[in-house]
Amino acid sequence: MSKVLVIGAGGVGSVAVHKMAMNPDIFSHITLASRRIVSCEKVAESVKKLVGVDIDVAQVDADNIEETIALIQKVQPKLVVNLALPYQDLAIMDACLATKTDYLDTANYEPRDTAKFEYSWQWAYQERFKEAGIMALLGSGFDPGVTSVFASYIKKHLLDTIDTLDILDCNGGDHGQHFATNFNPEINIREVTAPSRHWLNGEWVEGPALSHKQVFDFDQVGEKNMYLMYHEELESLATHYPEIKRIRFWMTFGDAYLKHLEVLQNVGMTRIDPVIYNGQEIIPLQFLKAVLPEPSSLGSTTKGKTNIGDIATGQKDGQEKTVYIYQVCDHEDAYAETGNQAVSYTTGVPAMIGAAMMLTGAWKGEGVFNIEQFDPDPFMDMLNKHGLPWQVKELDAPLAF
Amino acid sequence: MSKVLVIGAGGVGSVAVHKMAMNPDIFSHITLASRRIVSCEKVAESVKKLVGVDIDVAQVDADNIEETIALIQKVQPKLVVNLALPYQDLAIMDACLATKTDYLDTANYEPRDTAKFEYSWQWAYQERFKEAGIMALLGSGFDPGVTSVFASYIKKHLLDTIDTLDILDCNGGDHGQHFATNFNPEINIREVTAPSRHWLNGEWVEGPALSHKQVFDFDQVGEKNMYLMYHEELESLATHYPEIKRIRFWMTFGDAYLKHLEVLQNVGMTRIDPVIYNGQEIIPLQFLKAVLPEPSSLGSTTKGKTNIGDIATGQKDGQEKTVYIYQVCDHEDAYAETGNQAVSYTTGVPAMIGAAMMLTGAWKGEGVFNIEQFDPDPFMDMLNKHGLPWQVKELDAPLAF
Repeated sequence: MSKVLVIGAGGVGSVAVHKMAMNPDIFSHITLASRRIVSCEKVAESVKKLVGVDIDVAQVDADNIEETIALIQKVQPKLVVNLALPYQDLAIMDACLATKTDYLDTANYEPRDTAKFEYSWQWAYQERFKEAGIMALLGSGFDPGVTSVFASYIKKHLLDTIDTLDILDCNGGDHGQHFATNFNPEINIREVTAPSRHWLNGEWVEGPALSHKQVFDFDQVGEKNMYLMYHEELESLATHYPEIKRIRFWMTFGDAYLKHLEVLQNVGMTRIDPVIYNGQEIIPLQFLKAVLPEPSSLGSTTKGKTNIGDIATGQKDGQEKTVYIYQVCDHEDAYAETGNQAVSYTTGVPAMIGAAMMLTGAWKGEGVFNIEQFDPDPFMDMLNKHGLPWQVKELDAPLAF
Repeated sequence: MSKVLVIGAGGVGSVAVHKMAMNPDIFSHITLASRRIVSCEKVAESVKKLVGVDIDVAQVDADNIEETIALIQKVQPKLVVNLALPYQDLAIMDACLATKTDYLDTANYEPRDTAKFEYSWQWAYQERFKEAGIMALLGSGFDPGVTSVFASYIKKHLLDTIDTLDILDCNGGDHGQHFATNFNPEINIREVTAPSRHWLNGEWVEGPALSHKQVFDFDQVGEKNMYLMYHEELESLATHYPEIKRIRFWMTFGDAYLKHLEVLQNVGMTRIDPVIYNGQEIIPLQFLKAVLPEPSSLGSTTKGKTNIGDIATGQKDGQEKTVYIYQVCDHEDAYAETGNQAVSYTTGVPAMIGAAMMLTGAWKGEGVFNIEQFDPDPFMDMLNKHGLPWQVKELDAPLAF
């Protein structure tokens, strides 16, 4: 029986809170806070309607550490679940330190003014969290999150050593719009337009964004073009599994998506430095976000499935072996259950499960942790029970590319 | 020896003022006014440097009729040359009425909030201009402008009757940018994204924007894709030459330009209705203008030529005959002469010539006139002498499409 404070009332926050409300034995009291209280109230209404549970709502500017501290002191949660913007991670971690409250998030910190994804800023809190006797669990979404738990599961149960690991993220959904992003367009476009990077023999190998394409046949989705990208779990997996020689991340994009992205880049609409408009500074990417469809508005029209998983090749009992763990999530089913499509669902459910791991004591520690540092079994078990069932396949051979 | 007041210090205003300064016998005193006086000062500097003539500059908000009246009263020009935004035509015409000053422009009025190009608003000034004893010359740029003078020249010298008229506007220039417009992006994109419309047997025929493509081999440019569009001179030509059964306007666009335009439309960046950004209303197309390259910045890098002309088929001495009058303008030559590329040059020179027609009395009248209502010969003569030489060809057959 624990109180939890969730900050961030977008699609992921909405899913996480719905799923927490479905597990009142673990989450006895939920407070949802956001910059716009009306967003929290909408989620609260939906939770009441779909799950029959009352939650509290609060207004907070998560950039403002003092405001967040005051809210934590008022709510007295056992855990703060940060589902706000990645820019706000450090401010919320500071508030947790000040109040000695455990912390969980789903995406690593990035500064507003450079599209740079790395754990250094958050790992730098290691000693302070340890000294405060509190725990931070970083990256408890799907990717990062489930994909790293899959890696730990492979290491624990399927392979003695992992030589190569490929994370394949496929969204086979169709939202019926010319162009839209499945989550915050600003964060999505910053990520997609960053140079590709993968881990190879102890070093990072960089390449131009979206320049290395492979075709892959995804179960229940079909053949899709996927592109080599950088994604933040590569950094933590390379750190915590030094035995892995090559770690890569792939994401599928349709030709139309890429065409739109190319043009928006060409004309400067994805810039994150300000331009002067009518005498004021406006960041083009943030204005673009205001013009594009709200990701939350896509839920009701999105059809199709996501398929995200890990392919690992390594040694088992002295033999080379390749295994594939993946999870398929249906957009329409996710929407029916929580009012959000699968991209929010596959991130929000693992946030709830990570929170459950911490609140039940299944996972504990003092300091800052990535998700692959813990026993995967109780987490994998909850995935199966709470809407994200996964499958294991043995492949005949390693990936040919 | 006449005083002229030019309003608008963009590329077209810059060219017109340079060319006026080169003809001090007609333009004895030039005042250039604009919302941003610094733009006027830049033009004045360039005119001093390239032509050795001093001009006056002034600040005016052309949306504000009282301000414009005060400026006209101070400058006491014989003619106001309006090279500002088309939204401002009516306000400037009102100021001319109030001060009984002749008026000239290059583009018809359009309201800010609907992309609608028609002469009705300006033709409605007919009686008032007549009563005031002043003259308005509408559309004295290249198209509209020269293309209508070409039609009058054809009617006067080459054909007894015109059956069909096609205006072909080709810009074979390359500015070296991913995407940019050759004049004000806001005005350009409003025009290009409007439905196509052409005149056929006394009626307007509408079609979707950019849906009817033809390939045409332009002299000194080569083969280009050109698209059926609406353009404002179609309306005045249909009115003043009721004998013409079909009048069409074609403009060339490259595939990359169209791809960029399609995406910008898809994502909503060409919308002219406001979106809410950070609590304030911003019109996406106007913000896009702030992100795209300033058309004036393209002058120094643009290479290639424009080729704009009229193809007319009709009867001459009882025989069917097809003639083609066109003008080829080189971007680099235009830039060397005036610091502006050919798109500004081909509009600014005819503005100067139209002004010369009025100031010298070659063209006179009381009321509101379109350019094809006057004798083409003195205008055609000045085109040859002032940088826009034209050619006449007889074609073997009418256009095959």
